Amino acid sequence: MNYRNMTPDQRREEFARCKAKYDGLKAAGLKLDMSRGKPGKAQLDLVSDILTVLTSPEDCFADGMDVRNYGTLAGLPCAKALFAEILGCRPEECFIGGSASLTLMYDLISKAYTHGLLHSEKPWAKLDRVKFLCPAPGYDRHFRITESFGAELLTIEMTPAGPDMDQVEELVKDPEVKGIWCVPKYSNPDGIVYSEETIRRFAALKPAAPDFVIMWDNAYCVHEFDGDYVPFPDIIALCREAGNPDMVFEFASTAKITFPGAGISVMASSEANIAYISKLMGVQMISYDKVNQLRHVRYLKDKEGTLALMKKHASVLGPKFRMVLDTLEREIEPLGIAEWQKPKGGYFVSVNTMDGIAKRTLALCKEAGVVMTAAGATFPYGKDPRDLNIRIAPSLPPVDELRQAMEVFCVSLRLAALEKLDS
Amino acid sequence: MNYRNMTPDQRREEFARCKAKYDGLKAAGLKLDMSRGKPGKAQLDLVSDILTVLTSPEDCFADGMDVRNYGTLAGLPCAKALFAEILGCRPEECFIGGSASLTLMYDLISKAYTHGLLHSEKPWAKLDRVKFLCPAPGYDRHFRITESFGAELLTIEMTPAGPDMDQVEELVKDPEVKGIWCVPKYSNPDGIVYSEETIRRFAALKPAAPDFVIMWDNAYCVHEFDGDYVPFPDIIALCREAGNPDMVFEFASTAKITFPGAGISVMASSEANIAYISKLMGVQMISYDKVNQLRHVRYLKDKEGTLALMKKHASVLGPKFRMVLDTLEREIEPLGIAEWQKPKGGYFVSVNTMDGIAKRTLALCKEAGVVMTAAGATFPYGKDPRDLNIRIAPSLPPVDELRQAMEVFCVSLRLAALEKLDS
Repeated sequence: MNYRNMTPDQRREEFARCKAKYDGLKAAGLKLDMSRGKPGKAQLDLVSDILTVLTSPEDCFADGMDVRNYGTLAGLPCAKALFAEILGCRPEECFIGGSASLTLMYDLISKAYTHGLLHSEKPWAKLDRVKFLCPAPGYDRHFRITESFGAELLTIEMTPAGPDMDQVEELVKDPEVKGIWCVPKYSNPDGIVYSEETIRRFAALKPAAPDFVIMWDNAYCVHEFDGDYVPFPDIIALCREAGNPDMVFEFASTAKITFPGAGISVMASSEANIAYISKLMGVQMISYDKVNQLRHVRYLKDKEGTLALMKKHASVLGPKFRMVLDTLEREIEPLGIAEWQKPKGGYFVSVNTMDGIAKRTLALCKEAGVVMTAAGATFPYGKDPRDLNIRIAPSLPPVDELRQAMEVFCVSLRLAALEKLDS
Repeated sequence: MNYRNMTPDQRREEFARCKAKYDGLKAAGLKLDMSRGKPGKAQLDLVSDILTVLTSPEDCFADGMDVRNYGTLAGLPCAKALFAEILGCRPEECFIGGSASLTLMYDLISKAYTHGLLHSEKPWAKLDRVKFLCPAPGYDRHFRITESFGAELLTIEMTPAGPDMDQVEELVKDPEVKGIWCVPKYSNPDGIVYSEETIRRFAALKPAAPDFVIMWDNAYCVHEFDGDYVPFPDIIALCREAGNPDMVFEFASTAKITFPGAGISVMASSEANIAYISKLMGVQMISYDKVNQLRHVRYLKDKEGTLALMKKHASVLGPKFRMVLDTLEREIEPLGIAEWQKPKGGYFVSVNTMDGIAKRTLALCKEAGVVMTAAGATFPYGKDPRDLNIRIAPSLPPVDELRQAMEVFCVSLRLAALEKLDS
């Protein structure tokens, strides 16, 4: 029954029931971590064969070179071909990175500040002010990169079709607005897939800043946990066709395909952008780890091989997400105190509670031994203006622990809502 | 016989002899690359066992964690312990990087510009001018980092005991002078080992800039090719004892211990500096590749294991360096047209010709199919004011090819000298 339709007496009874349940769970002394999108051990064990694909000197030759030695700044051609097939772009549009696409994103923004991007009139550090668009809820590590360089972060509302494009189109008329963070497929944390219309409006943007950059973090490009792989448009081609060839940088990695701390990553963009950035990157490094690039190519083989592996990941992740979504549906949906998307891929379930109870819910969870992503983390500056968004990361704990964690979460949310309704 | 003591007629005869030899070599159609300090295939094959030290999930646990997963920004404790033992510093003074120490150096300078170092009054980007000291001949990639951020590069003369410390002590009185590049052991390219006095004077510097930084690139810390390992002072302790605990960052890597393109690296400094930098690095990444860190620790084990491997590298490199040094001694020394150090470690032999013939010598080499590091590369802005320094990198070619390359080099140098003396 919807909490708002209850009488105060009914809510008092409900509160007492929830409190008793909460105290019982608390007494169990749980210690569960659902704070980050970390794959669980069963997923890591799926990819053990990657450890032994290269075992001899002869294994280490590819693309006409000894991958153990120096050189080849932008990465092995075979690694470019792998990512190009996965993303739907061209191999020559790919720059292969190290274990973290986050580092490629940071380095791009850092270079925009110190040296400028291809079409910058000045390095951003020489400007009075830089503004950056942040669809929220979003990924805290994205926001923190631009925040750390002193950019002013402007929140863009998320809709079920992606960022509110009316807002975006309006704000890019300001030449101080230099870019936007996007997770276009299974957005972090909502799990929203940007609609075709949203994507086309992105490609057709006419920003006032000549060096406006769409940071297109396609982190979950092949990360369906429910159902088959969903094809997704190539933003680089779309931007080119719309006359904005150099407006987008796309990022992806194998962090959630092979090993989170030891995968390979890619930055993809127009050939002109890759040439420009390679010149700057050439001062920073000789190349990223090509042995690990070759390990990945030999292990994953191609898009088909990658999708087959992702099916195995889905068989581990699927039951975890179903547990979360089923529990929410059963325990929370009838009460009218929260809403959420029902994602089919990605790493999160994002719950929007009634206003003003996210922090309190997470404090109750923590008291009972369940750590979740800090409230507010999904908004610029870590401040959720309505204190309503909670990011659930179900990937790390085994299903049994997850069941307990969700019990704690649901009863905490109920208590917080009841407190609020009668405050 | 010294060319200067010859009569013009004698020199003409000598020129004709050299020209005939040069033309013969040129006709052989050689294609040899001695441009960079790249290990040769025989060296890479020495370390093949590193490919198979981790083969199962169980192998991937260390220091109480699953190294395949996210986390542990500053690197595995066991990797810190390995580098600390090699460098003589403390494990907690180490931050473990990816495959390139160059990237750690770049990132440190980049952050000095965008965010400032621990004792910076302002980020360097906000200053009118930044000057950086460059002992030369030195490493072109060092100079290029500071050049790319717009620093003014000031050349410091090299002596057989290291950089001219009188010059350094004088220049650091200028608050615009923000740091210095150093390769203290087997300097690139001279192969000079800084003397104890030089090192103590470095540690005791009293720069006007509170954020003056010594970039101590200990790239060749265990890289003897002739004779036993030579112990070397811990600059971090020396700076601490001299009251300058935060003035130095030391760098090293396994690039020339395991695989050049796929090793691990370290940045070592005071705990206060590492804490400060970790906060900034935490925005850029979650951690470097810990699987590769563990591979290295399991493979190298400790300093003793590392030194034993370096003996094997020496058995490959030693004959190559002897070939270069013996050839120079035999072919060039009597002529009085060039001088060089006789290094016992590192990756280069650096030849100082008589003034004004380095470029011409390398042009002749190239014409005969032998590519060397570009003339001038070892000086700031790529400009050798006296056009005399040539860096020879003997590591890549097999000994037989090296013999041919040195023949080409020596006869090219003789021709260039003779041209000059009679011009």
